[in-house]
Amino acid sequence: MFVLLSIFMTLPMLLMFRSEAPNAATFLESAAIVFSIGLLGIALTYRKPRDLKPRFMFVLTVSSWFIVSLLASLPFYLSNDGISAADAFFEGVSGITTTGATVFSGLDTMDRDLLLWRSILQWIGGVGIIGMFVAVLPFLRVGGMRLFATESSEWTDKALPRMKTLSRGLLFVYVTFSATAVLVYWLSGMSLFNAFNHGLTSIATGGFSTSDLSMGQFDDLILLEASFFMMLGSLPFFLFVRELHGQRGVLFRDQQVRLFLTILLIIPALLTLYRWAVSPVPFDPVHNYIATLFNVTSVVTTTGYASEDYSAWGPLAFVVFFFLMFMGGCSGSTSGGMKVFRFQLSLMVLREQMIRLLHPRAVLTRNYNGRAVGDDIIASVIAYTFIFFLCLALITVALAAMQLDFITSLSGALTALTNVGPGLGPIIGPAGNFAPLPDPAKWVLAVGMLMGRLEILSVVIVLSPAFWRS
Amino acid sequence: MFVLLSIFMTLPMLLMFRSEAPNAATFLESAAIVFSIGLLGIALTYRKPRDLKPRFMFVLTVSSWFIVSLLASLPFYLSNDGISAADAFFEGVSGITTTGATVFSGLDTMDRDLLLWRSILQWIGGVGIIGMFVAVLPFLRVGGMRLFATESSEWTDKALPRMKTLSRGLLFVYVTFSATAVLVYWLSGMSLFNAFNHGLTSIATGGFSTSDLSMGQFDDLILLEASFFMMLGSLPFFLFVRELHGQRGVLFRDQQVRLFLTILLIIPALLTLYRWAVSPVPFDPVHNYIATLFNVTSVVTTTGYASEDYSAWGPLAFVVFFFLMFMGGCSGSTSGGMKVFRFQLSLMVLREQMIRLLHPRAVLTRNYNGRAVGDDIIASVIAYTFIFFLCLALITVALAAMQLDFITSLSGALTALTNVGPGLGPIIGPAGNFAPLPDPAKWVLAVGMLMGRLEILSVVIVLSPAFWRS
Repeated sequence: MFVLLSIFMTLPMLLMFRSEAPNAATFLESAAIVFSIGLLGIALTYRKPRDLKPRFMFVLTVSSWFIVSLLASLPFYLSNDGISAADAFFEGVSGITTTGATVFSGLDTMDRDLLLWRSILQWIGGVGIIGMFVAVLPFLRVGGMRLFATESSEWTDKALPRMKTLSRGLLFVYVTFSATAVLVYWLSGMSLFNAFNHGLTSIATGGFSTSDLSMGQFDDLILLEASFFMMLGSLPFFLFVRELHGQRGVLFRDQQVRLFLTILLIIPALLTLYRWAVSPVPFDPVHNYIATLFNVTSVVTTTGYASEDYSAWGPLAFVVFFFLMFMGGCSGSTSGGMKVFRFQLSLMVLREQMIRLLHPRAVLTRNYNGRAVGDDIIASVIAYTFIFFLCLALITVALAAMQLDFITSLSGALTALTNVGPGLGPIIGPAGNFAPLPDPAKWVLAVGMLMGRLEILSVVIVLSPAFWRS
Repeated sequence: MFVLLSIFMTLPMLLMFRSEAPNAATFLESAAIVFSIGLLGIALTYRKPRDLKPRFMFVLTVSSWFIVSLLASLPFYLSNDGISAADAFFEGVSGITTTGATVFSGLDTMDRDLLLWRSILQWIGGVGIIGMFVAVLPFLRVGGMRLFATESSEWTDKALPRMKTLSRGLLFVYVTFSATAVLVYWLSGMSLFNAFNHGLTSIATGGFSTSDLSMGQFDDLILLEASFFMMLGSLPFFLFVRELHGQRGVLFRDQQVRLFLTILLIIPALLTLYRWAVSPVPFDPVHNYIATLFNVTSVVTTTGYASEDYSAWGPLAFVVFFFLMFMGGCSGSTSGGMKVFRFQLSLMVLREQMIRLLHPRAVLTRNYNGRAVGDDIIASVIAYTFIFFLCLALITVALAAMQLDFITSLSGALTALTNVGPGLGPIIGPAGNFAPLPDPAKWVLAVGMLMGRLEILSVVIVLSPAFWRS
């Protein structure tokens, strides 16, 4: 993994050929450090028997995301731009977790190799989370992920070839989508540099941009295309692979996908109509629908681009964006948030309870996408939800203790845990960035982003005393 | 019930003897209307067989709280003070649900009989909810209430005498506590009128006061006493009855009570220390500890008094008060909120999940206060939590659509559902009131208060189409 990371780290050096790589030496240095650590790791673990106990898997998962984030932020820290450790780590984590919150302002004039590295980081993070969804999460049984376990999720020798096929398929889909996005953006008028960066960060639902205006620098056509690519990045990638392998229709038959797309269809339309109805000035419905669609999609897919300051669209839009930040896309995608399927399972329990209240002796069975949903999966979803809100409250309190106002604290904690990107309010909202926050707040939020990316419970369990006992 | 209500309605007329009942005719008129409806009801249902099916019980519970609220607001609407229908209903609901949010300003110069009626309403609401907890909720199986079911909760002929003893005990405890509060307040320097009003609204965790300053009109000694009485009103009343019947120690052995008291012990102390540490001006630790204890207790017990504008205590206090609004007191008390036991059950599931993640084959049993907690109770708690957050989101969106700002919309929706009283922010915060809100917002919030009081699901189920089908 580290060796791969070091190879990616040399990519921004390619900008040398356009004389746009002022930090080429930094990237070489960072790549060398990461490569050495990688080699050392291989040497130390070569031919050692692998321990696949849950305890070990948790430590491995959490520590590898943490260390990769740390190493990924090296180029920022070692660059000539005087970036502090807190800022470098924040940006690195925000990249690797595909969050998209940034502490950098003046992006338009920033060193282009650093901009490119940010985008590459998000792209790597996107592959990472899709891979983890298939290979690690169902096995770890965190937060109801067992629901998506297939035979290939069992870690047996027999399943290994199937896992390899699936992994190759996922990578193929991911690369194809990314290449398409880059190409489409380029053909629609973006510079090659912009097209490459935004292509990577769209499919990764990352949200890093190359301008302080974020996607506000582009026209409506590109916003529509970006909405489509963000949506694509939020669909379960393994379903694309199954479509490729001949299982036609599985994507649109998926309950998660259906609700997700319905929400993207309904909310922007309703919000545009409302804004039209209450607008005191002439209102361009088409342009504003596209803007609403783009920004809603950006938040729901937890990408985090903005085309304008949607927090200034009035109280209703503000509140709707706040609640949409919780949601997230589909499981098995690059997006974050609480995920659509958890809301569907909760709704299922609610319906079941309502029926039971009226018919106490009713015999009910739960199923999701045709599979039975046991009490263990429900319990796992509750545990996730409870720890999510607990962490949300704790991070909010921590930020407020640093004298940050209510909206900044609450939306900052939320946007970190859901990997959305921007928060709400004048400081960290879509028109601002995370630069003005005190350093301790940046560390707290970086940890929050990592927790959010790893379904929270994986991190909490490794940090719990009981984990290390015995 | 209506006949009882009409009798209570004549009580404010007693102020005639102090020439403080300008609306005596209104109260007589209202009482006559309610009494007639009551008689009509008795005549219509006399000796009719009672249908105790869940469906009927739900309709009965929800409609009776709704109609009682409506009738309770008659004296406001019919008074000489030109109170609108929306305002009267809001105040009536806020009273009966022991919420304590008010649309009235200028309380200090308000007709005293109307003030008294507000306090009496909260006192009745307090009895109502304690009675409902014992007689209806466990039977309805809403929101994990089954956890508190005892043999006496079964609606069998055999259980009826036990229910009667319990009810008498509850009423005795409630009246004794209220009388004590009135007496203590009086002896501590309140006028008899103030002592009576605040005595009733403290034990009912209601929070209506007789001044726009709320309890800010009184000294530190009274604030300490009020903290104690609000705490008393938030403990499970049936445990007091069991203590009276010789089961010594059940109160302090109760897991719910222990956590609740621990929170009241820790949070005000920590918050005072923090405020002391960051205070730029000289800080009186004793006076400020009492103020913090009082206002935190007021919010946690969902009473809703304020002694000063605690929302101006800085971002941390703001955020802490926001999260405390969710909590609520113990089940079986007069307080609202999500209730301590639901957090404990969620925590239990979380712990269980964490153990299971490490030891997949572990055999675990849940128990709460020595009783096994089945999956049905857990499912019921999830259903409650999910519908709580769903309603919170919907009411917030509805308020924001009326152009109310984010903090007002969110804290307004929250304070209604949890029956706390004041919200946060400049409009409905502890220094403001609900008068400036548009009428539709008042109706929405009134419905929210009723839903919160009835554990939400009871109302949602009656409003669901499936309920009326077949």
